[in-house]
Amino acid sequence: MNDLSRAPVRETLAPFAIIEDVRPRIDDGRFAVKRVVGEEIEVSADGFAHGHERVACELRYRGPGDTSWRAVEMESLGNDRWRARFAVDRLGTWQYGVACWVDHLSAWRDAFLRRTDPADLRMHARMGAELVDACAANAQGAAREDLARWARALREEDDPARLHEIAMEPSRLELARRHAPRAGATQSAIFPAWVDRERARFSSWYECFPRSMSPQPGRHGTLADVEAGLGRIAAMGFDVLYLPPIHPIGRTKRKGRNNSPSSEAGDVGSPWGIGAREGGHTAIHPELGTHEDFRRLAAAARERGMEIALDIALQVTPDHPWVTQHPDWFRRRPDGSVQFAENPPKKYEDIYPIDFETRDWRSLWQTLREVFEFWIGEGVEVFRVDNPHTKPFAFWEWLIAGIHREHPRVIFLAEAFTRPRVMHRLAKLGFTQSYTYFTWRSTRQELTEYFTELAHDPSREYFRPNCWPNTPDILPRQLRDAPIEAFAVRLVLAALLAANYGIYGPAFELGENRPRDDVSEEYLASEKYEIKRWDLDRPRSLAPLIAKVNAIRKAHPALQSDWSLAFHGTDNDQLMCWSKRAGDDAILVVANLDPRHVQSGWIDVDLRALGLSDYGAWTVEDLLTGERYPWWGSRNFVMLDPRRGPAHVFAVTPGHP
Amino acid sequence: MNDLSRAPVRETLAPFAIIEDVRPRIDDGRFAVKRVVGEEIEVSADGFAHGHERVACELRYRGPGDTSWRAVEMESLGNDRWRARFAVDRLGTWQYGVACWVDHLSAWRDAFLRRTDPADLRMHARMGAELVDACAANAQGAAREDLARWARALREEDDPARLHEIAMEPSRLELARRHAPRAGATQSAIFPAWVDRERARFSSWYECFPRSMSPQPGRHGTLADVEAGLGRIAAMGFDVLYLPPIHPIGRTKRKGRNNSPSSEAGDVGSPWGIGAREGGHTAIHPELGTHEDFRRLAAAARERGMEIALDIALQVTPDHPWVTQHPDWFRRRPDGSVQFAENPPKKYEDIYPIDFETRDWRSLWQTLREVFEFWIGEGVEVFRVDNPHTKPFAFWEWLIAGIHREHPRVIFLAEAFTRPRVMHRLAKLGFTQSYTYFTWRSTRQELTEYFTELAHDPSREYFRPNCWPNTPDILPRQLRDAPIEAFAVRLVLAALLAANYGIYGPAFELGENRPRDDVSEEYLASEKYEIKRWDLDRPRSLAPLIAKVNAIRKAHPALQSDWSLAFHGTDNDQLMCWSKRAGDDAILVVANLDPRHVQSGWIDVDLRALGLSDYGAWTVEDLLTGERYPWWGSRNFVMLDPRRGPAHVFAVTPGHP
Repeated sequence: MNDLSRAPVRETLAPFAIIEDVRPRIDDGRFAVKRVVGEEIEVSADGFAHGHERVACELRYRGPGDTSWRAVEMESLGNDRWRARFAVDRLGTWQYGVACWVDHLSAWRDAFLRRTDPADLRMHARMGAELVDACAANAQGAAREDLARWARALREEDDPARLHEIAMEPSRLELARRHAPRAGATQSAIFPAWVDRERARFSSWYECFPRSMSPQPGRHGTLADVEAGLGRIAAMGFDVLYLPPIHPIGRTKRKGRNNSPSSEAGDVGSPWGIGAREGGHTAIHPELGTHEDFRRLAAAARERGMEIALDIALQVTPDHPWVTQHPDWFRRRPDGSVQFAENPPKKYEDIYPIDFETRDWRSLWQTLREVFEFWIGEGVEVFRVDNPHTKPFAFWEWLIAGIHREHPRVIFLAEAFTRPRVMHRLAKLGFTQSYTYFTWRSTRQELTEYFTELAHDPSREYFRPNCWPNTPDILPRQLRDAPIEAFAVRLVLAALLAANYGIYGPAFELGENRPRDDVSEEYLASEKYEIKRWDLDRPRSLAPLIAKVNAIRKAHPALQSDWSLAFHGTDNDQLMCWSKRAGDDAILVVANLDPRHVQSGWIDVDLRALGLSDYGAWTVEDLLTGERYPWWGSRNFVMLDPRRGPAHVFAVTPGHP
Repeated sequence: MNDLSRAPVRETLAPFAIIEDVRPRIDDGRFAVKRVVGEEIEVSADGFAHGHERVACELRYRGPGDTSWRAVEMESLGNDRWRARFAVDRLGTWQYGVACWVDHLSAWRDAFLRRTDPADLRMHARMGAELVDACAANAQGAAREDLARWARALREEDDPARLHEIAMEPSRLELARRHAPRAGATQSAIFPAWVDRERARFSSWYECFPRSMSPQPGRHGTLADVEAGLGRIAAMGFDVLYLPPIHPIGRTKRKGRNNSPSSEAGDVGSPWGIGAREGGHTAIHPELGTHEDFRRLAAAARERGMEIALDIALQVTPDHPWVTQHPDWFRRRPDGSVQFAENPPKKYEDIYPIDFETRDWRSLWQTLREVFEFWIGEGVEVFRVDNPHTKPFAFWEWLIAGIHREHPRVIFLAEAFTRPRVMHRLAKLGFTQSYTYFTWRSTRQELTEYFTELAHDPSREYFRPNCWPNTPDILPRQLRDAPIEAFAVRLVLAALLAANYGIYGPAFELGENRPRDDVSEEYLASEKYEIKRWDLDRPRSLAPLIAKVNAIRKAHPALQSDWSLAFHGTDNDQLMCWSKRAGDDAILVVANLDPRHVQSGWIDVDLRALGLSDYGAWTVEDLLTGERYPWWGSRNFVMLDPRRGPAHVFAVTPGHP
């Protein structure tokens, strides 16, 4: 470790202004805060100097490709805290920092205002004139002349009352401050911000297995089938269609149905078992179609305002071409065999993990990056990354920075269901969105605590939640053997608490609720290991509710970001009440967490969180039913019948119509 | 501003272990945490790696002059947080940091424990043997041989049950971990800690004006008079005797009594008006005595376990030698005169501020530093610095670091009654102790909030409060025209809430309570401008109570530091209840904030804060009166009569005698 002296000996006169505690900053400035195009970054800092000196503070920032810094004056919040904002209007890496200097002119004005003795006033008007001279010397043209005139007047005027007026001229004071020498100026470290496109903040994901999308029983689904089904998914209002891996599936040690260790003839294997003689991570499973089919699917999705998200799982089967082409990318066991994946006593002999620490890591990492670049070339701009937490953080930081440098539109969703620090680290190092613990949070207290953290903890600067009520891997407790109404509740929670959410679509629409056994979260007859037939036209499908909820999300900016979330009181633990707001658009949701019983109670709304006055009249319109209610004050009665719907989704307006 | 790329492109395989959020750290590591000799620094950090890798973490530290680092293994607190401590056993700058690496051996053991298949066990015993071989290669002598034997046993044993036993041998596992290669190791930044002597944390200050210390009315007091009075002050239990400036006092524009703008014959002026033809900051006022007298006073104080604190006020009168020797150290007004001190419309024409930004700043700063060094040479190790916040922060950082490098025992008390950020900055940059807002905090709520911040906010790592109920500048509202009992309350609050405290002695002992006018906090006939006669033997003096309180402080380690402070409930806002604890030593104080009336009520003590069980019997002994009470449980009744005393100061013991 290096030496570090407690305080450096100063060889030159140090800046006298002080900046402390610039926010936002992540890990002392090591990582970038995240925004999307069109948002603002509000920066605050402590700025001060010794004694009675006044300071001025300036926020400096620049966008990708800017060679110079833009500046905006910060406003004083009192107690030596300062604040300003800037808008980020394009993709890429932005930078910001704070400068602070001693504002002699303001200090002079403050003191001058308090002077009364005429001789004293004249003397200090001349001192002011010296300060203004220095400003004039920094100015050009008319400004310079105006300042020089001002300095002259301060020197020559004799009448104390008139001098006071001259000294206080606000427009000239402003002009002078703009050109004032920045005495004792200092600047903070520079902090990075990464700016994504809007979908990073607001997206609705639908996951389905292409091979199950065939309309004909017994036929393997294809990418063309997915394309044919796009209309239905778009009509439900989704904008990201996420496909599990579409690559050739290994045959050696292929898993059978229900994750059976051996497969039988006709078993199709898991899409996450990537690699066969037909190819690996850049190939397409022959029964799904061709690269041409894929490009057509991606284009068709784009035409409908959707895009395809691909699943990148950096692991291989024993049949993957890399196993023979690059034997040194895999760990060997003492008997010379390749180390398969395991979590003792469980073995996953169909999967070989990649050794990221191989001596040949440079070419390995480059090849993995080329997988992403290949699919970007095929029209993909969204990747759902499988288990990123089992690969080194340094790899992801390198990979995402590299991809983003060329392709700043690319969105990476981290599928890391693991410890909080690890999930946060992945988000810090560049993942755009992250899976969350929402999947397992079900009581009002659990949900309130968790979403309060997601919306208000400092980690929100980098951790963007993407909330899923189910995935092909997870049929959570609250959906096991649960009625379709339970799925409706989870939909409303995910879609209206979080701006980014997704569903494992067909299973969710149809309320698939059968667990494989009493302990695991696996589905019975999981689609991971077999082709499913989903009767998507079934009458009790959730599709109409999903479509309605997504339409509400699209129509209401309040629901398109996470930070405005506020929770409101209820006197019934089965009723959860929250609001989101964007400018004039305010949405209040009251959800019934109990899918089996009518629940009623009083809600106690913090009206100011909705932009309403404390005691006035207001109107709520249930966007699910169209019903309107005139309400007064903060306390109102609510009754919800799960058979009629999981929630009130109220648009809020002040007054009564 | 410099460029900063979002994420560096990796040219070599980066460390895989991650360290985040090392605590304590101040301003991202810019400033040092503070401790005193004999204390510990508890360091915590997040440490983790990707996937199922296990990590180990180590705290590294070194003291002043150490050329190598010492290390202590950190313990896991769960959730990827780690902790360890080290003791600081000598003065000066210490450094600490955290290292973290991937612990393959622990991961291997964890997985091995869960293996059941015999062939699998044998295979993985061999993989373990390879890890142990690598440890053996790092070891010497017997350790190396032992590890090699262990590796051999792991390779050769065939029986699964026996293999399990061999693999799990705890002592060998420990030995191997100690010599294990540190895969993927990373280390945090290095953080500084400054270690003072114990008096920085625990001190009792007594302030008096030497010129008022003459026993004969009409004679100017001397340093010899102060020396003669040392016994009385030592008997009251003080360990720092703080003298206002002892230098020659200017005559030009000298202030008269009660801060009158003009002085009359015989007016002695303010000690803070430093500099006359007799000399400046290194001279001694001729009527006080000689440097020889001062050295004798300092030595006599040391003999009594006390030390002299000098007041350093970096300002001059028009008569100070520097004004003629270094005219460029002062600002000029447009008429060529030197700029005097002012706070418009008030003028302080007897005082010239020093221009720290003078072009000649190097020689100015060096000269100012030599003032401190001069008095260090005369035996002073404690400085009370007057208004440090009106001088540049950079000056103090340079000065204190420079002094501390040569003289680490020196204590600097910052007399900065100003905004919080400014007071904190002075503490961060090196001031040992700081005056506080205690002087103006008087209600239970104000005191509780403020001392909770002082004792528990992260700023406690660098901001050491020194609490004063009065100063020569401040007769606060609660002491204006107040009875002596009000002084008793303030004494108990300062001395038992804070480990460092001080009083402006004679005025406090005697309950001097007459304000100059209805608005200011100045004393009537302030000692700052005239010589006072204090009748220190007056019967109603607080001296006996002060002596008792200081004796209690000295006898009870609980009262000698600030961090253990806990507040307890009372049902009467005039009763304030708190405790402090150090090991087995526990003190519980109940103070009556009302100096005029008997107050009674129930206190509700958090017994665990006192190290007691929740429902047991306990005994309190009032250290002021000697009375003992057997108590049960957390709620007990208390009645306090201000005429009998301001508080119960209970020593707490478990059980009943």
